[in-house]
Amino acid sequence: MKIARFSVAGGDPRYGILDGDEYVVLTGDPMFRGFDTTGERVPVDRAKLLAPVIPRSKVVCIGLNYAAHRDELRDDAKGPEAPLLFLKPNTAVIGPGDTIQIPPVEGRIVHEGELAIVIGSIAKRVKAADYADVIFGYTIANDVSARDQMFADGQWARAKGYDTFCPLGPVIETELDWSNLEIQTYVDGEPRRHGNTRDMIHKIPELIEYVSDVWTLLPGDVILTGTPAGLGGFVDGQTVDITIEGIGTLSNPAKNRV
Amino acid sequence: MKIARFSVAGGDPRYGILDGDEYVVLTGDPMFRGFDTTGERVPVDRAKLLAPVIPRSKVVCIGLNYAAHRDELRDDAKGPEAPLLFLKPNTAVIGPGDTIQIPPVEGRIVHEGELAIVIGSIAKRVKAADYADVIFGYTIANDVSARDQMFADGQWARAKGYDTFCPLGPVIETELDWSNLEIQTYVDGEPRRHGNTRDMIHKIPELIEYVSDVWTLLPGDVILTGTPAGLGGFVDGQTVDITIEGIGTLSNPAKNRV
Repeated sequence: MKIARFSVAGGDPRYGILDGDEYVVLTGDPMFRGFDTTGERVPVDRAKLLAPVIPRSKVVCIGLNYAAHRDELRDDAKGPEAPLLFLKPNTAVIGPGDTIQIPPVEGRIVHEGELAIVIGSIAKRVKAADYADVIFGYTIANDVSARDQMFADGQWARAKGYDTFCPLGPVIETELDWSNLEIQTYVDGEPRRHGNTRDMIHKIPELIEYVSDVWTLLPGDVILTGTPAGLGGFVDGQTVDITIEGIGTLSNPAKNRV
Repeated sequence: MKIARFSVAGGDPRYGILDGDEYVVLTGDPMFRGFDTTGERVPVDRAKLLAPVIPRSKVVCIGLNYAAHRDELRDDAKGPEAPLLFLKPNTAVIGPGDTIQIPPVEGRIVHEGELAIVIGSIAKRVKAADYADVIFGYTIANDVSARDQMFADGQWARAKGYDTFCPLGPVIETELDWSNLEIQTYVDGEPRRHGNTRDMIHKIPELIEYVSDVWTLLPGDVILTGTPAGLGGFVDGQTVDITIEGIGTLSNPAKNRV
């Protein structure tokens, strides 16, 4: 099922289960409180979607997890043998329709459309075979990156961590076969970056085992599973859409920061 | 004044102001609730100190911010012109006396004793001249690092982000002249890494301006200001002490992870 986090008329964030053209309102955050319902229903067109989760702890990112993208960035054909981890801060997270603010830095700002895992329970040293036990669901992420700053710093935290550089949404799908999903990115409706989750180098069970060995994962933590090939920039005034089969489309306009 | 976060007989964390050999108990987290007191006093020897803050959002680290340390790591004499930023997850934070758990990885585990800034208010694009307005106080951090993994990954998030790799404490000092403080690290009582905050390349007002331009800082976020020269490892069974004038000593034993 699809879980949305939304606000009605500027009120506090609420969670709901999508049922036709309504959300069945939940009593609280389902990652902490399960799926008890309030009995209320909210029409979809009255709800402003918010980021489906604000991680309490970590946005974990996996670098270079598709061979075609890795080969764009690295001369050596050989990629890292273990998953390459980096972090975005939770202050980078925005929701569907929110504006990506382009900071005044040199070089291109690029989109990276990715399948994102939402963690549902405390996860520490989880075996690959048990990976599904700790996953709440899946959403779409845009791993927005200031390309030149990645190379200037060496460390990617700044280039990929600016406020608004982690759009998430539109919803969390709790039942998804992640093994063969098309990921398609568009800029102003024109198709750009494209790929399929079957081409991940490190698959999701392996990622859960590896990441949860390094870090204790908390409910609401998010893991971005890496971007397929097709680097592409966007500029002030353009809109980036990312579509993943079974989840939906995450759409965000971009503006230069004022 | 010195603010501690502590637990009495395994109870919930509380905050208190150090007054002689007692803590004056506060009504809540002073970064959110100010300094209202409950009227209760707790003897220091009844309180188990905890990490003085668990960041809600970010542990920001500044890399290579002392010339002598930078030159240990880089062949080129020239350091980065801008501060080099990276992140640790809040799940790495432990408190005074807590055990640093050494993961089963190749190579040395090293200590990096650092002055840490605790943010006291929402901070976004703060000018250097106004830096003090957003600082709650200062504490001591140990930027524990798995040295070989830093180089293996290129990105430092894993090597510096393992659970327990960010000891903080023992207390937060809210009134501190940070400009000329000795930082002394000991392993099993033997002096190791040593430095003085006057040798920071990027000083604290500049760091606040730079970091708050990239990221919105939240109350309770922590900025580690970099480590002076003197790389040094430690192993199972040893204890790392870091002393900074005016704050105290942060002491943590180390054990191999089981």
